[in-house]
Amino acid sequence: MTTKKTDLERLQTVVIENLEPCIDAGRYPIKRVIGQELNVSADIFKDGHDQLSANLKWRKATSTDWNRTPMKPTENDRWEGVCHFIENAPHEYTIEAWEDHFKSWQVEYAKKYGAGNTDLRTELEEGAILVAKAAERARRKDDQKRLALFSQQLKNADAHFGAQLAKNPELTGLMGAWPDLDLSTELRPYLRVTVDRSEALFAAWYEFFPRSADGKPNTGSKFRDCLGRIDDAKAMGFDVIYFPPIHPIGFTKRKGKNNSTTSEPGDPGVPYAIGSQFGGHKAVEPELGTLDDFDWLVDEVHARGMEIALDFAINCSPDHPYVKEHPDWFFHRPDGSIKYAENPPKKYEDVYPLNFYNPDWKNLWEEMKEVILFWVRHGVRIFRVDNPHTKPNSFWEWMISEVQRDYPDVIFLAEAFTRPKMMKALAKGGFTQSYTYFTWRNTKWELSEYLSELTQTEMKYYFRANFFPNTPDILPFFLQTGGRPAFLIRAVLAATLSTVYGIYSGFELCENVAVSGKEEYLNSEKYQFKERDWNAPGNIKDYIAKLNAIRRANRAMHEYENLRFHTVENEHILFYSKATEALDNIILVLVSVDPFNPQSGFAYVPVENFQIDVADSYQVEDLITGEKFTWRGRRNFVMLDPNSRPAHIFRIRRLIGMDGAQMIFA
Amino acid sequence: MTTKKTDLERLQTVVIENLEPCIDAGRYPIKRVIGQELNVSADIFKDGHDQLSANLKWRKATSTDWNRTPMKPTENDRWEGVCHFIENAPHEYTIEAWEDHFKSWQVEYAKKYGAGNTDLRTELEEGAILVAKAAERARRKDDQKRLALFSQQLKNADAHFGAQLAKNPELTGLMGAWPDLDLSTELRPYLRVTVDRSEALFAAWYEFFPRSADGKPNTGSKFRDCLGRIDDAKAMGFDVIYFPPIHPIGFTKRKGKNNSTTSEPGDPGVPYAIGSQFGGHKAVEPELGTLDDFDWLVDEVHARGMEIALDFAINCSPDHPYVKEHPDWFFHRPDGSIKYAENPPKKYEDVYPLNFYNPDWKNLWEEMKEVILFWVRHGVRIFRVDNPHTKPNSFWEWMISEVQRDYPDVIFLAEAFTRPKMMKALAKGGFTQSYTYFTWRNTKWELSEYLSELTQTEMKYYFRANFFPNTPDILPFFLQTGGRPAFLIRAVLAATLSTVYGIYSGFELCENVAVSGKEEYLNSEKYQFKERDWNAPGNIKDYIAKLNAIRRANRAMHEYENLRFHTVENEHILFYSKATEALDNIILVLVSVDPFNPQSGFAYVPVENFQIDVADSYQVEDLITGEKFTWRGRRNFVMLDPNSRPAHIFRIRRLIGMDGAQMIFA
Repeated sequence: MTTKKTDLERLQTVVIENLEPCIDAGRYPIKRVIGQELNVSADIFKDGHDQLSANLKWRKATSTDWNRTPMKPTENDRWEGVCHFIENAPHEYTIEAWEDHFKSWQVEYAKKYGAGNTDLRTELEEGAILVAKAAERARRKDDQKRLALFSQQLKNADAHFGAQLAKNPELTGLMGAWPDLDLSTELRPYLRVTVDRSEALFAAWYEFFPRSADGKPNTGSKFRDCLGRIDDAKAMGFDVIYFPPIHPIGFTKRKGKNNSTTSEPGDPGVPYAIGSQFGGHKAVEPELGTLDDFDWLVDEVHARGMEIALDFAINCSPDHPYVKEHPDWFFHRPDGSIKYAENPPKKYEDVYPLNFYNPDWKNLWEEMKEVILFWVRHGVRIFRVDNPHTKPNSFWEWMISEVQRDYPDVIFLAEAFTRPKMMKALAKGGFTQSYTYFTWRNTKWELSEYLSELTQTEMKYYFRANFFPNTPDILPFFLQTGGRPAFLIRAVLAATLSTVYGIYSGFELCENVAVSGKEEYLNSEKYQFKERDWNAPGNIKDYIAKLNAIRRANRAMHEYENLRFHTVENEHILFYSKATEALDNIILVLVSVDPFNPQSGFAYVPVENFQIDVADSYQVEDLITGEKFTWRGRRNFVMLDPNSRPAHIFRIRRLIGMDGAQMIFA
Repeated sequence: MTTKKTDLERLQTVVIENLEPCIDAGRYPIKRVIGQELNVSADIFKDGHDQLSANLKWRKATSTDWNRTPMKPTENDRWEGVCHFIENAPHEYTIEAWEDHFKSWQVEYAKKYGAGNTDLRTELEEGAILVAKAAERARRKDDQKRLALFSQQLKNADAHFGAQLAKNPELTGLMGAWPDLDLSTELRPYLRVTVDRSEALFAAWYEFFPRSADGKPNTGSKFRDCLGRIDDAKAMGFDVIYFPPIHPIGFTKRKGKNNSTTSEPGDPGVPYAIGSQFGGHKAVEPELGTLDDFDWLVDEVHARGMEIALDFAINCSPDHPYVKEHPDWFFHRPDGSIKYAENPPKKYEDVYPLNFYNPDWKNLWEEMKEVILFWVRHGVRIFRVDNPHTKPNSFWEWMISEVQRDYPDVIFLAEAFTRPKMMKALAKGGFTQSYTYFTWRNTKWELSEYLSELTQTEMKYYFRANFFPNTPDILPFFLQTGGRPAFLIRAVLAATLSTVYGIYSGFELCENVAVSGKEEYLNSEKYQFKERDWNAPGNIKDYIAKLNAIRRANRAMHEYENLRFHTVENEHILFYSKATEALDNIILVLVSVDPFNPQSGFAYVPVENFQIDVADSYQVEDLITGEKFTWRGRRNFVMLDPNSRPAHIFRIRRLIGMDGAQMIFA
């Protein structure tokens, strides 16, 4: 049933509805980053024929003062307003709208005067009263005086002078500044916005196993050995160093090479089988060093202008301290023993799942939050969360909001490769970023469909796609079979289609040897030490460095929702643009999705979107190669080659003048 | 900000979202009538791999007990359920969903057994425990016993017998009957349904001015003179007799013939200028008789199986008792005088608008409600509300819910010819039915577009279109110019496109003389007495009687949302069907929208929708003429003539056998 309205609410009779953006009727917040614009629109109307005014209002959730900006009517009772946010904190927004008596008076006066009425004394008297009341509301002395003067003038005006006053811009402005909001209608409940720091929207991630830092075949590296790998990532232009779990690895049922159920002495174990006599989720694996070593590494990473992301995997090995300390947190068999994970007929004897509904669930949930806060206090502000879709959504919603209340700069990335609605629900529930199906979207049609859904539907308000072309768990068939060109192609797509993306190390070396018939790495470093030459011939490190430099230098690449697909007369060439609203940075990307054959065709540049006349020439500068081409109008020819030039990333430069016969471009 | 959740709510972790139908996130109720089905669907999912079950629940808003029906998963985490309502009262509905441990156990057991495991003692023990717990929950003795027995059997079973038990239908049924709902998640807040009586959805209205009952040129008829008109309407098949306002008409500034600002002695005045020394909204115009006469008439109408609808027009003449009793309810000019209605440069000196925001607004709002309740107590259950869009939406929402709380059988029809969003908002806010743009939709494209919006979009859940081809205020150009065929055409369209429709008297006589260049009646009876021969030659009373009889006899015509448009190879022929879900009543309507020329073409019958094989013959019986045609397959020829046969209303009869060479149709 509807809640009973107060008397005042019953008189707040403006209808405000169908507000956008609004996720599940305001059940979930939308997401913005600092400085990002928010366009809000709604249907606003009221009975009768009076004029309305409306404000868009927003504030920090902990604040009592609203920021306000006027909304403007468009058509069919739709109104629009724009705001932006300047602080990394939870915010809220809403709309207030009211019958604007003065505006109504202005319209009515103009009509009557226009109809030839000369005796409008009563109308002027009514106007004078409205203005006098505004003078009383005004909280600036000057405005009070000016309004009082206008009121007096209206009182004494004849019909003709009254008509001048009724449209006087200063009076209109002053009346707009001090509206009568007594009966203004406010949309409730307020809508919420999670305002993140900018790295939530724009960053390049580099994932590596710290034990693989040196690439030695039979022994692991330590935290203190990681600087080389980190400097290399920095040279490639990455912002975030992401480590798989760094916690003590269990010994009981430890997995061997290639996921063997038995391990050999010396096998390092899977970092996701967390917990041993050396501790659990708040400890570090002794083979990697000490907590002090980790702190040192965090400082080193920060000193390089980068940051560290940790993996939050709620898995316990049979050796995890929780097993002894909190046996009630686990599932039990009728005989009282703890249940291991199963997905019949598969058995995972090395992992004990936690029971989020156990009688002591509150302490378990608190402890999980404490794990995050522990690492937050050690300088970590990004967490990649392993398999969040196997823990309750309400747990994540609670935990993330608890953490972000005190640390709004903490970023959570959901690693959920699961059904679409669950992936969306996790994002709505609070995850800052999400893994995606990008990893398996290869064709032009698949990519344009999927990216349109991500960036052009309601999803853009809550689901930030972090594109990974590979992960330690996934070596897609496209990379297995397409050779070095496949890696170049996927790098371009990941780096330019979304604003956040990452690679799992080895990608830059074009590592592509899989377990036969599966999308898994052969001899995966999840299970063993892995020998690597981080500068192996054929690597694409320079290409990646170039991509990241282009991303950084071009503001159009920092925006997520500005992706637009365009026509090209070739099934294997994907053509899209990203442009700033001011059109001072326009990027065109043309990528071949065919790693085997050259592809060419005519691309249709939507010059009208870029305010370029169809008859005009413009320059496209390939930001990868530095080559410059002069194009004209819509239809222009491109030729791509998987080995030498799998993609163009063009910046459009406008014709700004001529030097003799020479065209000069901006 | 989100409301804090209780501990229990934090453990209710099933995600239930995107429920349909749901108007503005549940802000407004949907509408159904008694017996009408409601299909509810929602996205339902949960973390992990466990099986879910879900119920659709509904109840009277004043009840504490839920009705429940299981929902079924379709695809992509979408679930569906159907319910219907048996009482004319406000209802609510929601969904509950839970992790179904026994269903999960069944699936897991089947997998393990299927994989060849023979030692499943632990699994059987787990199953036995689940069943024993259900035995404890069961509230039927027999079920308790059976479940206890099953539990015992599971405990002692070997793997093979266990596999039989795990899929035993009786056990499955019993476990479904006594689920563990401790941690079931319930969607909140509940959704609301206004369940109306069936006349809200299916009725034919006949509007006449009681003072015109006898059709005398210079004097008015009285309530006691109305039976002839009412019997005539009954003979035509109408259900509702709708009277324009019957209250005392003001004398001050009374309008004369054709809306003249001066009236002659003897001019009866406009019934919408309400209030005189004889009373206001709770009185009857003495020229019509007494309140006793009205009560007598209501009884007479009821005795004929019909009912009366009154007009609720919140207009006050300067002579209305409110003006003296409650001067503060009106708008005032600076000199203290009461403001008349204006729409500059037009002035309406004979009407004083009421100020719904005046300091004494509560008493005004209450009084408006009391007006309705006054007539409810006099046996009236239908109110056509004049210009609701000039009074606050929140007033209507409050007033209608207050009235329907005690009198759920009261029907409100919104006469708002205004902007689309306001019309929708009034319907959402509680109006049972609404006037529409039908009056001005004439072409095939206009009609199919508009009807598709009304009956196939979300509007079908809250906006019931009551189609009037004419009103005392509107004589559309189509009727002015199209002659008798135009009346036939509009009658067929109104009567068959929607389930509720009405005509304003004179329509059956094809009255079509307008004020030149306007859509207004010349010599309108709003302003004067009107001479009429209610059986004038050329009338279409028999045709209307036929239409109403067809509507009544065919259940497909009682449904609103079953309208479907079909192709016909002619721009001027509209082709649509209405069919019951069981397909035991299928109506095809073919109407020419051209009142001037014969039109013919091939109509494409969607036989596959009706489970008729494309190779089969079927009979179409014209319910207007009784003619029968044998058709076959999709493409069949029709020919319509504006004078003799502007429309076919076919009932499809299936071929059920042969008598020699003679086909027999059901």
